[in-house]
Amino acid sequence: MTEPDDPRVGDLAEAAILRTILDAVGSATEAEVGPGDDAAVLRAPDGRVVATTDTLVHGPDFRLAWSSGTDLGWKAAAVNLADVAAMGARPTALLVALAMPGDTRLSFVRGLAQGLAAACATLAPGSAVIGGDLTISSTLTIAVTALGSLEGRPPVLRSGARPGDLVALAGDAGVAARGIDLLFARFTDASGPVRVDRSGLDADDLAALEAQLRPAPPIDLGVEAAAAGATAMMDVSDGLALDATRLADASGVSLALRTNGVGGDPEWAIDGGEDHALLATFPAGSPPPGGFRVIGEVLARGAHPLLLDGEPRAPRGWDPYRDWDNGRG
Amino acid sequence: MTEPDDPRVGDLAEAAILRTILDAVGSATEAEVGPGDDAAVLRAPDGRVVATTDTLVHGPDFRLAWSSGTDLGWKAAAVNLADVAAMGARPTALLVALAMPGDTRLSFVRGLAQGLAAACATLAPGSAVIGGDLTISSTLTIAVTALGSLEGRPPVLRSGARPGDLVALAGDAGVAARGIDLLFARFTDASGPVRVDRSGLDADDLAALEAQLRPAPPIDLGVEAAAAGATAMMDVSDGLALDATRLADASGVSLALRTNGVGGDPEWAIDGGEDHALLATFPAGSPPPGGFRVIGEVLARGAHPLLLDGEPRAPRGWDPYRDWDNGRG
Repeated sequence: MTEPDDPRVGDLAEAAILRTILDAVGSATEAEVGPGDDAAVLRAPDGRVVATTDTLVHGPDFRLAWSSGTDLGWKAAAVNLADVAAMGARPTALLVALAMPGDTRLSFVRGLAQGLAAACATLAPGSAVIGGDLTISSTLTIAVTALGSLEGRPPVLRSGARPGDLVALAGDAGVAARGIDLLFARFTDASGPVRVDRSGLDADDLAALEAQLRPAPPIDLGVEAAAAGATAMMDVSDGLALDATRLADASGVSLALRTNGVGGDPEWAIDGGEDHALLATFPAGSPPPGGFRVIGEVLARGAHPLLLDGEPRAPRGWDPYRDWDNGRG
Repeated sequence: MTEPDDPRVGDLAEAAILRTILDAVGSATEAEVGPGDDAAVLRAPDGRVVATTDTLVHGPDFRLAWSSGTDLGWKAAAVNLADVAAMGARPTALLVALAMPGDTRLSFVRGLAQGLAAACATLAPGSAVIGGDLTISSTLTIAVTALGSLEGRPPVLRSGARPGDLVALAGDAGVAARGIDLLFARFTDASGPVRVDRSGLDADDLAALEAQLRPAPPIDLGVEAAAAGATAMMDVSDGLALDATRLADASGVSLALRTNGVGGDPEWAIDGGEDHALLATFPAGSPPPGGFRVIGEVLARGAHPLLLDGEPRAPRGWDPYRDWDNGRG
């Protein structure tokens, strides 16, 4: 849907596009210098900054028939905020490198900036976009860097799990994966992806779509887990089996998980990515904070890094270089 | 030139590509947690971090016939390090989001990582890549975020120039622009860009090519300018006339520059971008540090933000949304 006065970014100067974005993104509590200079200056009160980057690319990561600009801005923020949270840190700021085709509409860019701002305000209050870069590209690409503060705590690494620890999970598992399956099954035709008509969807389907298009990881629980003594943590972006195996490998342990504790449909939860749940381990004597559910325990390293309901389980998750089918839409 | 055992990244798992990159990038002095976890942790000794992001996109920003992977890695680092330096800060780390077509060769990726590492080690010793993201894309895209430390000094903004200040420039002006002109004039045929044969080029031409493909901004002079009391500073990425106008507008002053002080051929120096020279202003009583040449003075805001040799001068610089011709190669 094109607004009557909705120019293509290719017909505008960079400064005009930038103004539209900066009008929407708000300001970060910890920003000493915000957007507009050669660089931003962000306060890092404990003398350290957590930093991570993650990109959404048109084709492998999203389809424009399914995602609005606002959806994409939200998701690009959320997946990066989750990586900061997974260190036990509080996200403080984002930088956004946006590469767009010339025929992108300004209304789309405005929606994207609004989505970034909404995800920051909702999931990590006080954080906001403090800088960025605009360029033209044949492929719409949103590369976000998120920064965060550990507030004096040590970072929670993937490598700290010890035999005897409890394994706990916070946030959805497999819901976003059910959402992408639903999109491919119900909202494609011979030409590829088509616009989503939500009128025929039940509550579960709508929740799955929402989890895929606008994931809401439990960002605040990252800090809570760290404060409660989490020994290891990571965000589940590529499926519980694959990410749990990564945590086990980094820590030199094995993990024994019970699928009935994971929540939702185990079929989707085990190999389904993109929910950005937090997977963490806690000493047996330190109960996980509210919002985490215990799903297993840490064992001494055995022949298999991961046991599901007592059985070895080889992971299979999304690998962009193996799994993208070259489709767009 | 494809090595005999030089796989396409599309035939490799993400982890294998990542290993090749991490083997090349070195480690940052200020990194507390480097690559491999959900996020990196970087020391920010004075409780603040400088942060900026800039992207190179295949087509508008580079051609693969002209730039090697190593050139691209170098340039992607250099342009970002320059933005940190322009705040008066010391660059400490990079994050790199790399989106590549599946037919990209692993040797190209290795070169790119080596170029990133070489630029960090040469231009900003102690800095290195501390994190990143890999994804597949139809369009090769290198989005870099650079972080830096102000070491207790206030940031040098664009907005601090005051009437009576001297204007000074460090680094090349117009050399990179002569390089891109040379590439289009001498190294294209009917099919587009062709490989560069350096054998027929004189020393000036070679220097222009080098400045375009592997710019070497005077990163260390950013800190020196700040320590010497610079009142305003920015990096010249879009041409001296355009960037001087931006500094004048941000500071609410006018700048009077003498073209014979700029260095090189004034034709190229005034509107030619991409050298990433440092443009700074200093109080009249504080001589600029060695490496800066005085090119003018700051006036009270007049009818025109910029005077060149006493004449008003409207800027014209590179605008990706206006100026890209959709070519690649």
